Amino acid sequence: MNEALITVTGWVADDPRHGTTASGTPYLALRVGCTPRRYDRRTAQWHDEPSLFLTVNCWRALADNVRASRFRRGHPVVVTGRLRIRQYERDGQWRFSAEVEALTVGHDLSRGAATFHPPDRAAPDHHEPRETAPTTSTPEETTTP
Amino acid sequence: MNEALITVTGWVADDPRHGTTASGTPYLALRVGCTPRRYDRRTAQWHDEPSLFLTVNCWRALADNVRASRFRRGHPVVVTGRLRIRQYERDGQWRFSAEVEALTVGHDLSRGAATFHPPDRAAPDHHEPRETAPTTSTPEETTTP
Amino acid sequence: MNEALITVTGWVADDPRHGTTASGTPYLALRVGCTPRRYDRRTAQWHDEPSLFLTVNCWRALADNVRASRFRRGHPVVVTGRLRIRQYERDGQWRFSAEVEALTVGHDLSRGAATFHPPDRAAPDHHEPRETAPTTSTPEETTTP
Amino acid sequence: MNEALITVTGWVADDPRHGTTASGTPYLALRVGCTPRRYDRRTAQWHDEPSLFLTVNCWRALADNVRASRFRRGHPVVVTGRLRIRQYERDGQWRFSAEVEALTVGHDLSRGAATFHPPDRAAPDHHEPRETAPTTSTPEETTTP
Repeated sequence: MNEALITVTGWVADDPRHGTTASGTPYLALRVGCTPRRYDRRTAQWHDEPSLFLTVNCWRALADNVRASRFRRGHPVVVTGRLRIRQYERDGQWRFSAEVEALTVGHDLSRGAATFHPPDRAAPDHHEPRETAPTTSTPEETTTP
Repeated sequence: MNEALITVTGWVADDPRHGTTASGTPYLALRVGCTPRRYDRRTAQWHDEPSLFLTVNCWRALADNVRASRFRRGHPVVVTGRLRIRQYERDGQWRFSAEVEALTVGHDLSRGAATFHPPDRAAPDHHEPRETAPTTSTPEETTTP
Repeated sequence: MNEALITVTGWVADDPRHGTTASGTPYLALRVGCTPRRYDRRTAQWHDEPSLFLTVNCWRALADNVRASRFRRGHPVVVTGRLRIRQYERDGQWRFSAEVEALTVGHDLSRGAATFHPPDRAAPDHHEPRETAPTTSTPEETTTP
Repeated sequence: MNEALITVTGWVADDPRHGTTASGTPYLALRVGCTPRRYDRRTAQWHDEPSLFLTVNCWRALADNVRASRFRRGHPVVVTGRLRIRQYERDGQWRFSAEVEALTVGHDLSRGAATFHPPDRAAPDHHEPRETAPTTSTPEETTTP
């Protein structure tokens, strides 16, 4: 099946815009920039590549939570979702959109810390069952008995 | 080039373990569970699939920031990085490890909000240049002049 | 939603095993190895990391086409799909499986060429509509009129 | 680190263009379309979403092998790599490019078979070591002794 799955690590390029569709669904659009760095083995130095920009579309609970997280310009962000690109003419003008339909969004914690605020409703109590995945004694290995 | 790149959305299965290598590098191991859901078109219902568990290895600033973010069991998380799987014998026992060398970690904001705490050092002031990516008036499109 | 999406570039580690479920669905299991290489900036050299191994599950048309493609041990392969890891006890023994439910499989063309054989049924005639995505005159850009 | 990693399953939208840089590096540009399908639970039907188009840049051995693979318009393809998007003005016109710097390219074998042609040079003989990953007796599990 055709699919375009993307994971972007970048930074918030503009304050988010939040709204509600006519049928009452919350959405939020987050403009995200991404400035990849490459290591040049010949010069043994890092350099920045040109930035790319995407509009990240969030819906429902994700839209509400991203809004409550108060993202501001420059905050580091990680996004995963489906890429959508369109280029078309309207009113005699060329228009272009590069968007991601977000599966999820988070802060990029390689560039700062974040404090989590659980939703009001009681969250399910997730425990890892001992019989299926024993606690490891080191980060490197799981020992079978 | 051989590579195994993975993006996991899941939940923290155990409290993180933080440490420092002999050479002084901070690291943090985060146990992450993932319980995919599938939609069954015949029954028109969702059902949970069996959970999988991975140990997510974080290093340097990412380790410090994940530690400062105070992840607790059950918190929702998104991780992207490189998968490592090993299965081997030692001391007459089979051992197995399934790990991710994390490129980044964040809270999964589809299941709660999070407040960002920038690092102490001044962050670069990222602005999206107007000439390369104009602010969109709707989430759907960018208009060229 | 919880999800573990993976893209692996590697090599076929064993001849594929093909079969049919009791209800008549074709499947194929492909054992895939992946030996990542890393560039060490201190020594300015590449080195191999330990290999990881995954069983890639293919179903229906993908199973039939991978079978018809006659993959052999050592052939380069790219796989994208959903990771499944389980560790459990049965008959007094620990068992472990690391699998990918494949969305698709292809030859990794960075390490050899491949000739395509279309399926017998007439394929849809895919054309890129000129008005939505004009043919580029260089690989670098699309010009708007 | 900022990064935009993408895996696209789609179809070849135009015959590939092959060339060589001034310094003698082979490259190939492959125009790829992607028409995602979504399942609508309300109507219990699939529908096509609008297509997106990307130019996939291949370099060196990958360029040569994709050329030798004789991709034609309509052939199914899977691509993984780094997304690059730019939008800029030149000669009074807005230009836009959406490209993928390919890590690898393959045929999408969910929609046809392909025959592999190894490169002329002897390939390394990859065997999966028995002690680290025993051959499975079923696609479902690995038994530890």
